[in-house]
Amino acid sequence: MRVELLCTGNELLDGSVIDSNSAWLEARLFELGIEVTEKRVVPDHLPTIAAAIREIAARADFLVTSGGLGPTPDDLTAEALAQAAGVSMVENAGVRAAIEAKLAERNRVYSEAQARQAHVPSGAEVLPNRFGTAPHIQMKLGHCQVMLLPGVPREFYGLAEAFVLPRIGAALSADPTAAHYAFLEVRCYGVWEADMVWAVRELPDRFPGLRVGTRTAAPENHLKIRASAKTQAEAEAMREAARAVIRERLGDRIFTEDSRPLPQVVFEALRDRAATVAFAESCTGGMAAALLTDWPGASEVLRAGWVVYTEEAKQRLLGVSAQLIAQHGVVSEEVAVALAERARDRADTTYGGAVTGWAGPGGGDAKNPVGTVFVALASSSGATVVERLSFPGVERDRVRRGAAYALLNQLRLAAGGS
Amino acid sequence: MRVELLCTGNELLDGSVIDSNSAWLEARLFELGIEVTEKRVVPDHLPTIAAAIREIAARADFLVTSGGLGPTPDDLTAEALAQAAGVSMVENAGVRAAIEAKLAERNRVYSEAQARQAHVPSGAEVLPNRFGTAPHIQMKLGHCQVMLLPGVPREFYGLAEAFVLPRIGAALSADPTAAHYAFLEVRCYGVWEADMVWAVRELPDRFPGLRVGTRTAAPENHLKIRASAKTQAEAEAMREAARAVIRERLGDRIFTEDSRPLPQVVFEALRDRAATVAFAESCTGGMAAALLTDWPGASEVLRAGWVVYTEEAKQRLLGVSAQLIAQHGVVSEEVAVALAERARDRADTTYGGAVTGWAGPGGGDAKNPVGTVFVALASSSGATVVERLSFPGVERDRVRRGAAYALLNQLRLAAGGS
Repeated sequence: MRVELLCTGNELLDGSVIDSNSAWLEARLFELGIEVTEKRVVPDHLPTIAAAIREIAARADFLVTSGGLGPTPDDLTAEALAQAAGVSMVENAGVRAAIEAKLAERNRVYSEAQARQAHVPSGAEVLPNRFGTAPHIQMKLGHCQVMLLPGVPREFYGLAEAFVLPRIGAALSADPTAAHYAFLEVRCYGVWEADMVWAVRELPDRFPGLRVGTRTAAPENHLKIRASAKTQAEAEAMREAARAVIRERLGDRIFTEDSRPLPQVVFEALRDRAATVAFAESCTGGMAAALLTDWPGASEVLRAGWVVYTEEAKQRLLGVSAQLIAQHGVVSEEVAVALAERARDRADTTYGGAVTGWAGPGGGDAKNPVGTVFVALASSSGATVVERLSFPGVERDRVRRGAAYALLNQLRLAAGGS
Repeated sequence: MRVELLCTGNELLDGSVIDSNSAWLEARLFELGIEVTEKRVVPDHLPTIAAAIREIAARADFLVTSGGLGPTPDDLTAEALAQAAGVSMVENAGVRAAIEAKLAERNRVYSEAQARQAHVPSGAEVLPNRFGTAPHIQMKLGHCQVMLLPGVPREFYGLAEAFVLPRIGAALSADPTAAHYAFLEVRCYGVWEADMVWAVRELPDRFPGLRVGTRTAAPENHLKIRASAKTQAEAEAMREAARAVIRERLGDRIFTEDSRPLPQVVFEALRDRAATVAFAESCTGGMAAALLTDWPGASEVLRAGWVVYTEEAKQRLLGVSAQLIAQHGVVSEEVAVALAERARDRADTTYGGAVTGWAGPGGGDAKNPVGTVFVALASSSGATVVERLSFPGVERDRVRRGAAYALLNQLRLAAGGS
């Protein structure tokens, strides 16, 4: 089955907007088992859009367009479809009534601009759009089903879920030779993307019909698999066999087998165990605390935090002695441990976490050059873990983010979360 | 002048990668005065890529491709170009020597995979790629200059800067009828995008040749203008006239007229005035501190921070009285002021900033429902500013981000930064 995308809009060709609608739709289609055959982006120019629709409709089973359905004169997609089909634009009484009703709610009157949105290609199927004013239009051109979606993300997603994906899915289901699929997403921390790929490199050979994809969301790495087979049960069995191999290879570097980000996994692991934590952050400047408090109920878990970027703050706020700093350096295992233990003691929490490091570009010494970070985690049991991280030549913001994630990952390992 | 883009790669059609390379190149071309005429995305399939190159080259002046130049069997763009041109692939001795030298550095030997990258279409121009192993290839097809870029962002950007943009720019300069351009970017905080557009709505009518574009990077809003005229001096005069109108309309909601984000503007304003600050953050959980410490030299400015998410932390860490909290509520003007003043006093800084609010989805009361945030800024002069923000129905992460930016913006206004 051949599905193509056509996106319209000058803003997609002058760099002012990055199109993420299509990637979302492509991912949803991929879950149905469809890989989009081609995507084209053209400007707001009537003959160009009409020619593209005609050309694509001659070869595709489905054409989904995005953009150009608003009320302004450069919204041209419906008219282009009419041209491609060789029909005229006609006013649709139902759409007009719906737009008038919406406008009345806001005490506004029907204008020429709105009238544009009530005109549709003669013979087109007109479907309700509860996310905006322009109707959703579909029309058969030869053997190709053309489906027009607005570019506004909320409307695009809403109408795609309501009318585009179900119809393409139904066409697939009607095909007895179509494959069945099972999916798995595994998210890792602490393994390079290349090593993750290497660890599972023989999976596609071992399981014919298995596709493996990876994505980096630094410092997380995500592994996605799609198992395809003649029946759903076979596809799921293949997925489970692949899951076992992946778990064996990647072990506790896997922090989740769903789509939660690491900070959420850590937050929920602590919350579910009624564990609490306090942070003392130097180079991360509050980032670890901000990541952990991104979830409702954060006050149950993060009891306190100190941003001790300066030496003075480390002494004044948490009582780390000037002598300890002078002896070992402000970026050292000893200072990280002192900060973590004092944070835990002062806030009376299960865990105390600390970060101290040279995020760059300045700072550093021979022993601990720029890019060196110490992360410490003190537990109420008395054990304190220290990790020395090295990010040579890495930009400041990535060092900081890497360090904040390292602290959260230590918490995950300590709390036994996954 | 007609410039088209062709991106290759299955990963761009199954939703696993969002292409941001093209948007970057389109924006750079737009600054030269060029709007890309069409962009096409096709899978790793040799006949499809070759057909697309042939079709586009028949009508465009420049075709820039992206992707498909690596060492794996699904890297097919160079071969597709050879097919489109009707020539064979030949090994390039210079490229082979360069790849062998690079491999020798890493103690690896030349393999069949690398050999692929040393093969180029016969007659193509081969340019050095100091960002990776595959050479940069350009070739004239009819009157169209075809330029092949790798999909890896670092190589894509590097080679585009080195060989693609200069050549397209040179072709433009050779055209005596080409327009001249002047650009302006203005970044705002505290104004809705729609209101920003409305404020400058008559600019394009008043200055024929002026284009206005907007972009939201919540909670910032960016306004970009491009003035075009027959001479550079006229274009710049138009830009300056437009700048005066924009400044008059948007006033101190403009925080910069360059491309710095708000946190950087605030950081630099404080640093340049040798002013210091300490934060006490409740619902933002360290986000304001993390934003302000994203810049080298942060310790000169942010002297200390407290994450006081819980009531207990507000009392224990900063000595806010239980009575004050009981009397006014933990989310109140009074508690925000107390936190800001105590942060300033304890850290002995020029400013003390505080945030307390209901980020949701839980919490809130009749007087201050979910989405209410108080932001306070205490100055060493004694004056304390309090702002009450209301984000009804807004998701938690946007409330938090909005609140952290509101605090930074108060700092900007107090320090007189822009």
